[in-house]
Amino acid sequence: MSQSIRIKSPATIANLVCGFDILGLALEEPYDLMTLEKTDGTGLEIIHTDEYKLPLKPEDNVAGAALLAFLDEYGQAPGLKLTIDKRIKPGSGLGSSAASAAGAVFAANELLGRPFNNNDLIRFAMFGEKVASGVKHADNITPCLIGGVTLIRAIHPLDVVSLDAPELFITVVHPQIEVRTSDARQILRKEVPLQLAIKQWGNIAGLVAGLMKGDYELIGRSLEDVIIEPVRSILIPGFDDVKKQCKEAGALGGGISGSGPSIFMLSKDLKTAEAVEAEMKNIYARIGIEHKTYVTKLNAKGMTIIED
Amino acid sequence: MSQSIRIKSPATIANLVCGFDILGLALEEPYDLMTLEKTDGTGLEIIHTDEYKLPLKPEDNVAGAALLAFLDEYGQAPGLKLTIDKRIKPGSGLGSSAASAAGAVFAANELLGRPFNNNDLIRFAMFGEKVASGVKHADNITPCLIGGVTLIRAIHPLDVVSLDAPELFITVVHPQIEVRTSDARQILRKEVPLQLAIKQWGNIAGLVAGLMKGDYELIGRSLEDVIIEPVRSILIPGFDDVKKQCKEAGALGGGISGSGPSIFMLSKDLKTAEAVEAEMKNIYARIGIEHKTYVTKLNAKGMTIIED
Repeated sequence: MSQSIRIKSPATIANLVCGFDILGLALEEPYDLMTLEKTDGTGLEIIHTDEYKLPLKPEDNVAGAALLAFLDEYGQAPGLKLTIDKRIKPGSGLGSSAASAAGAVFAANELLGRPFNNNDLIRFAMFGEKVASGVKHADNITPCLIGGVTLIRAIHPLDVVSLDAPELFITVVHPQIEVRTSDARQILRKEVPLQLAIKQWGNIAGLVAGLMKGDYELIGRSLEDVIIEPVRSILIPGFDDVKKQCKEAGALGGGISGSGPSIFMLSKDLKTAEAVEAEMKNIYARIGIEHKTYVTKLNAKGMTIIED
Repeated sequence: MSQSIRIKSPATIANLVCGFDILGLALEEPYDLMTLEKTDGTGLEIIHTDEYKLPLKPEDNVAGAALLAFLDEYGQAPGLKLTIDKRIKPGSGLGSSAASAAGAVFAANELLGRPFNNNDLIRFAMFGEKVASGVKHADNITPCLIGGVTLIRAIHPLDVVSLDAPELFITVVHPQIEVRTSDARQILRKEVPLQLAIKQWGNIAGLVAGLMKGDYELIGRSLEDVIIEPVRSILIPGFDDVKKQCKEAGALGGGISGSGPSIFMLSKDLKTAEAVEAEMKNIYARIGIEHKTYVTKLNAKGMTIIED
């Protein structure tokens, strides 16, 4: 059995506009690089080689907390050293904490001969999400682990469904402002009008059907959120302009990535995805907010093991 | 062009448990028989050969109101005589009014050389639904017209999606009690807790995915309604027993058909669907409520033209 493993743990987009808390997809880029090594000692050591000054004590570290949950159930744990080169900026809305949590347990599972299945790994990784945001959600962890577009039908007990999807190009803009997941949750109404809930579930059903049929027009029409986006988008300067102009540039649709502040747009082809990126850059240059953009694709695989 | 047309207009099940106002499916049985004939005169004559004493004045008759909407847009109308042999009992929750409305406009469209498309016909038929229940809903009309399992993604503008589905056997029990659609709507809460709405849209996404994948287990797990059923099922004696015992007899799941009082259960095969029927009969015999049952199949086609 190998003594160490090196992986890419991808960024993810949760919610996919109308699928709050249930839908997510994995991106080809950006991703975190993680190396997990067996050591001669005992216990778990965490090292970050990135700039983000994240806590290194395992129980306070997102990857560490997930790994401790894994090891607790695994039993006879060897000493482990986890080195994280985080490239998905924390707080971007691109599943940075999920990449840490899911990456750590995926790496451990591979290194130790696959004692657990994907549902177990999701369960362990949710302990990391709890450290990050106080909530054990799985909508970033799941696509990060298994790739593609995923549905969390239910969380108790966990019921995960992979959804077929056509080729999708994804443009992301991350305006460099801070939106805390916990704040983004707090501003949501606890009750929603039934009429809006019905609209929302029509769109969710349409999005699932559109993805599975490979019907780009239906995907585009279904990317509408009448419940969460109207509230959360207020926290993101430029949101309405981005949405409007990117759709004019040919994007199928899009919205807030996770709880923001990143915004994503889906396109049928690379050329459109690049035109969408140009719109995003223009808007944030005009408003004067620093920003980072990505033009990438749907990642059908999730985790990647980097061979030596 | 033919001088008359005779059709079968099928019963339908709206909502499909978790898809309130958006999902529906067509049944092989029961169905209404309708004959539409051109006359030498002008105007529209409606005849019912059934026992239900429905209004015959076109604007007060569900089929008549739908047909008037059709003719209003069609323009140069010939005289027409519509004879309805209603076999789907009004108030059963099996789309009786939709069968009248959709059947009438489908027959007229065929008889007059197909001047309109399905979306037009749905639009006309909704005028019939408005006469029946005060609300222009399309979740029975759509599967009645086009068959199979259908999604109304949005109603303004109308966006209808056909969903692939595996072979499904359907058992229906109609306890002979009265539940008015308008009453069944009024008891619903106008606001729903966000947490329940999220559960509901997880189930809707799961049901759509399960149908399209042909994954019977996923269909079964997704047939859960945490919003409408807990309120409406109170109006239907025996509901909880039917649900519990039919699932024990092997049904995938099921619930209230439309706004009730009929209850439907989906099964993978005929044998199970028949065992489910036996459970239903036992329960209502025990409670002492007159009832009618059907064991039938998903109707992939919708309307059937009866050739001479």
